Amino acid sequence: MNIEMIKAAATRLAPVVRRTPMLSSPFLDEMAGRRVLVKAENLQHTGSFKFRGGWSALSGMTEAQRAKGVIAYSSGNHAQGVAMAAAKFGVPAVILMPADSPILKIANTKALGAEVVTYDRLRDSREDIGARLAGARGLTFVKPFDEPLVIAGQGTVGLEIVEQAMAEGVEQADVLIPCGGGGLTSGISITLEGTNLRARTCEPEEFDDAARSLASGKHEVNATQGGSICDAIVTNSPGEITLPIMMKNCGSGLVVSDAEAMQAVALAYQRLKIVLEPGGAVALAAALFHTDEIESDAVIVVATGGNVDTDVFVRCLETL
Amino acid sequence: MNIEMIKAAATRLAPVVRRTPMLSSPFLDEMAGRRVLVKAENLQHTGSFKFRGGWSALSGMTEAQRAKGVIAYSSGNHAQGVAMAAAKFGVPAVILMPADSPILKIANTKALGAEVVTYDRLRDSREDIGARLAGARGLTFVKPFDEPLVIAGQGTVGLEIVEQAMAEGVEQADVLIPCGGGGLTSGISITLEGTNLRARTCEPEEFDDAARSLASGKHEVNATQGGSICDAIVTNSPGEITLPIMMKNCGSGLVVSDAEAMQAVALAYQRLKIVLEPGGAVALAAALFHTDEIESDAVIVVATGGNVDTDVFVRCLETL
Repeated sequence: MNIEMIKAAATRLAPVVRRTPMLSSPFLDEMAGRRVLVKAENLQHTGSFKFRGGWSALSGMTEAQRAKGVIAYSSGNHAQGVAMAAAKFGVPAVILMPADSPILKIANTKALGAEVVTYDRLRDSREDIGARLAGARGLTFVKPFDEPLVIAGQGTVGLEIVEQAMAEGVEQADVLIPCGGGGLTSGISITLEGTNLRARTCEPEEFDDAARSLASGKHEVNATQGGSICDAIVTNSPGEITLPIMMKNCGSGLVVSDAEAMQAVALAYQRLKIVLEPGGAVALAAALFHTDEIESDAVIVVATGGNVDTDVFVRCLETL
Repeated sequence: MNIEMIKAAATRLAPVVRRTPMLSSPFLDEMAGRRVLVKAENLQHTGSFKFRGGWSALSGMTEAQRAKGVIAYSSGNHAQGVAMAAAKFGVPAVILMPADSPILKIANTKALGAEVVTYDRLRDSREDIGARLAGARGLTFVKPFDEPLVIAGQGTVGLEIVEQAMAEGVEQADVLIPCGGGGLTSGISITLEGTNLRARTCEPEEFDDAARSLASGKHEVNATQGGSICDAIVTNSPGEITLPIMMKNCGSGLVVSDAEAMQAVALAYQRLKIVLEPGGAVALAAALFHTDEIESDAVIVVATGGNVDTDVFVRCLETL
């Protein structure tokens, strides 16, 4: 992975991607004790940054390969990102989703034009089902994070952050990034090389595989396998490609509680007028509630997504 | 009023204003039966477009005038817009608010650095109190809409709309604008002259003074004086300056029900990941629920503000 791959992805993305705004509020600055800039990727197509990786992957394939279609595993944001990218290219997308996924997520993914194939989370092997479908139809897998084209697409967020930070007069800052498998974090971290902006991972408690992997220098795994309110960014362990990049570029990882993530959702609603999912708000939570773990005078927060169930969102608002 | 005054305001605003994004969702396009582009001014500083008019007014004064400070009447978005503009200039702002305003709105206006003076809505004359304070301290009034500098500031939204519509390949569209006194609508309408974009007012039922004034050609007033869930955009009658501009430039006015405005708030949450107040969502409501009153193949919606009470917001989400 290198910066040229990310710049090439930015060129491919330019006609379709939404340049998301950098938001701020004096109320959040005061809470954090420093300037807080929020890169609102929840406003990206499909409600999360994942559209960037999806489009980057599809636009980086040969036309023959793309024409046969793509396949992805995901119950959430990656599914919608890949589905919309495929729809805009007019090629088939198959999304494998657990049969017990929220009905709305399945419906949304179908409405974006994808064929949704469900599997039983306990009895079926999604890898077997996926391999069979891919083989039979000539579909190309789009991995959620451990794939150079996907990392390059997510990294385009970083190119925009560097430009927008300059425009705001911010030259030195911690850049806090919600981290699942590390595709977004590793991609952004490459774009920050040579600047005084430093990428740092943010995760929910009990799912802090990235923070622990960064500390130990090897792939740590989570003891728990799911059930977090921050489900959008929970993965078992950082990627093979992403972890070495993060080890080279990132500061220590930050870890927030579910309650802090939920409060951050509420404050983003109240002060920034944006809708975040708890997983998409962990970096904002770190900026607001872990201020003594941050050194620089300014903090840049990536708000990664806003695909939240309404009952969860209302519970978050009750923390106000 | 003319386009040069709006361009001059844009130059003064450039260093501080947030260029808000133009959002969209295939789900909203499908509901509306045409492309729907949403100009998200709820993401402007202070959560509404009113910051533009406030900054335009303050930056358009002489330095000596500005140094003495400003005064405004408002229980809502205009108050916050003027307060933040004054704070950024480091000059005093006095905001006259009804004593029964929501505590949070008073607190927010104070937190933005303004001095809040409350009055009894039934017993006191805010005009008398305002005139006394302004005279004693040399404060300059910043009117909410019937003031050229304010109209010019709000009109900068229109300059951005024209550019962003072009970038989206939209050359012909109805531009639906939540309308109170008409400062925003008249300002935007001037920037659309000579294009195939046409400004149209949107209002809640029972507070459709602009639609009726546009139809009759004279200042119509509302029978009811308040109590709308769309409080942010309710005024008694269009302005002396704004109505003639709107009569020259605008198509017929659209009127939506409170229930439609509340559904639009919920759909903006679900599909665009933004927080709107009901008054800020009336144009989106018109685009989604009054489709047969719109002729063009595309519609551009201004989402004017997001300063909503949480209990109202949660009631809106219950419509999903």
